[in-house]
Amino acid sequence: MCMDLDFKKMDGLVTAVIQDHASKRVLMVGFMNEEAFRKTVETGFATFYSRSRKKLWLKGESSGHRLVVKSIETDCDRDAVLVKVEAQGPGVCHEGYESCFFRRLEDGDWQVSETRTYDPESVYGGKS
Amino acid sequence: MCMDLDFKKMDGLVTAVIQDHASKRVLMVGFMNEEAFRKTVETGFATFYSRSRKKLWLKGESSGHRLVVKSIETDCDRDAVLVKVEAQGPGVCHEGYESCFFRRLEDGDWQVSETRTYDPESVYGGKS
Repeated sequence: MCMDLDFKKMDGLVTAVIQDHASKRVLMVGFMNEEAFRKTVETGFATFYSRSRKKLWLKGESSGHRLVVKSIETDCDRDAVLVKVEAQGPGVCHEGYESCFFRRLEDGDWQVSETRTYDPESVYGGKS
Repeated sequence: MCMDLDFKKMDGLVTAVIQDHASKRVLMVGFMNEEAFRKTVETGFATFYSRSRKKLWLKGESSGHRLVVKSIETDCDRDAVLVKVEAQGPGVCHEGYESCFFRRLEDGDWQVSETRTYDPESVYGGKS
């Protein structure tokens, strides 16, 4: 096993870009420490490190919207990973959208560029 | 103008995911400080902040392989941007590949999963 990544540049974390394996849409960006990365590889479900909560975070642990890993790539300097996934459930974003990238820059303002795919209240019950 | 992003979480930086606007391939991940983000918006060429060199970095300034901005999206917590681009030149990665994500995890090892699209020596002359 030689899965070395460069966790030193960002205080023990690498950037993790999550992309839908079929549509190729970028769904979210998170961070993984070494343990989260290993969990992701071993379990086949994308697992992150939450900087705000300072703990591992299995995406979908409360919503059920897990991310099934299809492939993992790393970049030239090994401080980022690109995880191609099959997203379970109607959306990845806790605000009710398919992708966390639901706002586009239009004439200097961020504009919501799509409609929700689910009601976040019914899934998260007020907590994100 | 209300292009506010959350630069506080990562010492003045946001994550910038660069995606080919046509093929939807993720080409690279970089970081932008507020100035780099504004330059990106104003010039229409992706501009980053180099953490190692501690200065702005117009992608393609030495190679000519610039990234022409097609659209910019931000995520729910506004600490990352997704920049869809048209890449000028044969490749984005200074190692000679179309994308910096040219290695895939296969049975616990990172394997180069594609061939180079140009000779980095002839473009960068030994410097990256």
